[in-house]
Amino acid sequence: MSDTVSNIEMSRRRLLGTVGAAGAAGLALGAVGGAAGYAAAEESDSGAALTDVGATEVMFHGKHQPGITTSMQSRGHLVAFDLAPGAGRKEAASLMRRWSAAAQKLMAGEPVASGGQDTGIALDAGPSSLTVTFGFGRGFFDRTGLVAQRPAQLDPLPAFSADRLDAARSNGDLWVQIGANDGLVAFHALRALQKEAGAAARVRWQMNGFNRSPGATAKPMTTRNLMGQIDGTDNPKPSDPDFDRRIFVPESGKPEWMAGGSYAVVRRIRMLLDDWERLPLDKQEKVIGRKKSDGAPLSGGTETTKMDLDKTGPDGGLVIPLNAHARISAPEANGGAAMLRRPFSYHDGIGSDGVPDAGLLFICWQADPLRGFVPVQRKLDRGDALSAFIRHEASGLFAVPGAPRSGEYVGQRLLES
Amino acid sequence: MSDTVSNIEMSRRRLLGTVGAAGAAGLALGAVGGAAGYAAAEESDSGAALTDVGATEVMFHGKHQPGITTSMQSRGHLVAFDLAPGAGRKEAASLMRRWSAAAQKLMAGEPVASGGQDTGIALDAGPSSLTVTFGFGRGFFDRTGLVAQRPAQLDPLPAFSADRLDAARSNGDLWVQIGANDGLVAFHALRALQKEAGAAARVRWQMNGFNRSPGATAKPMTTRNLMGQIDGTDNPKPSDPDFDRRIFVPESGKPEWMAGGSYAVVRRIRMLLDDWERLPLDKQEKVIGRKKSDGAPLSGGTETTKMDLDKTGPDGGLVIPLNAHARISAPEANGGAAMLRRPFSYHDGIGSDGVPDAGLLFICWQADPLRGFVPVQRKLDRGDALSAFIRHEASGLFAVPGAPRSGEYVGQRLLES
Repeated sequence: MSDTVSNIEMSRRRLLGTVGAAGAAGLALGAVGGAAGYAAAEESDSGAALTDVGATEVMFHGKHQPGITTSMQSRGHLVAFDLAPGAGRKEAASLMRRWSAAAQKLMAGEPVASGGQDTGIALDAGPSSLTVTFGFGRGFFDRTGLVAQRPAQLDPLPAFSADRLDAARSNGDLWVQIGANDGLVAFHALRALQKEAGAAARVRWQMNGFNRSPGATAKPMTTRNLMGQIDGTDNPKPSDPDFDRRIFVPESGKPEWMAGGSYAVVRRIRMLLDDWERLPLDKQEKVIGRKKSDGAPLSGGTETTKMDLDKTGPDGGLVIPLNAHARISAPEANGGAAMLRRPFSYHDGIGSDGVPDAGLLFICWQADPLRGFVPVQRKLDRGDALSAFIRHEASGLFAVPGAPRSGEYVGQRLLES
Repeated sequence: MSDTVSNIEMSRRRLLGTVGAAGAAGLALGAVGGAAGYAAAEESDSGAALTDVGATEVMFHGKHQPGITTSMQSRGHLVAFDLAPGAGRKEAASLMRRWSAAAQKLMAGEPVASGGQDTGIALDAGPSSLTVTFGFGRGFFDRTGLVAQRPAQLDPLPAFSADRLDAARSNGDLWVQIGANDGLVAFHALRALQKEAGAAARVRWQMNGFNRSPGATAKPMTTRNLMGQIDGTDNPKPSDPDFDRRIFVPESGKPEWMAGGSYAVVRRIRMLLDDWERLPLDKQEKVIGRKKSDGAPLSGGTETTKMDLDKTGPDGGLVIPLNAHARISAPEANGGAAMLRRPFSYHDGIGSDGVPDAGLLFICWQADPLRGFVPVQRKLDRGDALSAFIRHEASGLFAVPGAPRSGEYVGQRLLES
């Protein structure tokens, strides 16, 4: 991805505790990092060598915030905060300044002195593709007296019939998404940012997620979810001609402080795994409209083959049923509505109801939720065969501004407008 | 580790869906697997290549069960079951036979038809160092009419003054430890084994854990816990002359069915992170007796330098305080009591008490808990400076028999005695 630098030299420098411009100078991106990483891996025992997993550093500055087009990471934390009673615009600006400085250090794999001293949890580890992404919820604008700057895109999402939303785990004034390819690096960032909030903001809710580990599979594009289904096949790709327009607010877009930003819809989607797993494979595949083994449409081909939505079988019926999830959610069936889905799976053990508290921390990114998540979810809500096996238990909608320019903090153009 | 085979050829064969003796034939262990893995990694984008992370397969058969001396894995699940009402020795034997067959397939990275069909959650992934380890709790012997075969080592652990144990999350008739370097592979195994239990056993409790990802650091032996402390420095090593004697029941040991087995003490140790992190670094180091940065004893040297317990500072006081955790838990201070600690960190978000529900799933292995965990914990309980920052919230003690011989199932020598 464009925001990712595989930078073994920089990481080594940090690991060795030496700092200097010379260290960062002689770098060729990508190839050199990779080669050096794998050479290092052969020097010692398995599990004791810095590979690309640890050495990869994602850049904090850029056009967009990290954690949107960044490759999916194996560990994630989502945490929402509410501004503390009495905290307003000034305290929010100060918080965003502290958080931005901390995020930049954390993503470089450096210690941060949040609350006086670094916790040490990530010591020895490389940056491990850590990303920190900040968003503002609807309430943030009321609390900071910035209602005039609030984008219409933050208007509350419509209610859907299948929603079983827990308000205490939904929304929030501020949202932080943390992702990394190491659990301790991710936890270190979570603790640091939580402490950095100080008296300005209080945790409203927090969720933990995971994805496949880099290197666990040889197949690209085959992220699976906890239903065993390949997830993300129809995702727009950064190489698509209209990718930027659909996912990001343009430089000339409104409000101005959202230039280069995106809107994140976050849904905690519980999977009713006991019910799902009792369903025979052929019925599961009809619910989805794709083969479980390789994600190919039931109309034939491979994972990336376009669905033939009109194809009929020997019995004259549609091969991809009318209520199949893939048919209903297909971009071509939704006026080209596109969102970039970048989820984490979650698994919090066994719920108080005795069945797995597991599913998907669904996160999707779009320039406008009314042309992305909302129309697709409306259609799914009416007729998706998958609905019987999932339950939306929490929801959030956040405005995620573009990346700060060097020296700026995230949201500065809003808070100092 | 001796039970680990880095077997890229076998994994590829499975991934490609081709099976044949020829595939497994031309293998050299270790070096070839590593080299092939890294070559493969350079073929495509980051995150889309099978590396040692996914390709490594741990053997199910051997002298000891896997998951004891296996390198620590980045994801773990602990789950305890109670035999269902009405289930006895026959049902238990049948369950162990099913579980053993499933574990062997899972560890080879193969699908399992638990409950009729594989869930598909691990499809495309390599074995990812998956291990499944089975143990028997005290209640198992009552339920199966095998009290005469119950080892004295399963006598209840003594109560410790700092215990705040939740009985519902402690002990259990059966214990399963799952570890893997991929979250979906670990979850796949958990679901499969849970379904395989069928009507014979019910989940009593379940916990999720994690450790550093392979490749996230270049330093060996520097696992850190969520206090930021290096953990495991004083662990006995398989190369130690008395390692086997201390960790495993000898072939000639009693009861006979435990030959090659080990006893696992499992403690859910909550860390009071808010309190700990408020403590200045120098005070944290005095609590532990080691430097946080590199784990070196406060008496000097490096992580592996022997502690100088008598060394005094300029003020005449002991450099490593009398109540320092490292001093009290040192093997030399405990008559050579030795246990192999192989924990996972855990983090279940924010507890109902408003502070992090996070800490250590402490798991230690020994030939006899009365010569391993118990004497050390007794001493810690009396005077460990760390006690103020931790709380034991759950406890389990399990007899983990040796690995089954080919064709046998785990515990067969007990259940068919």
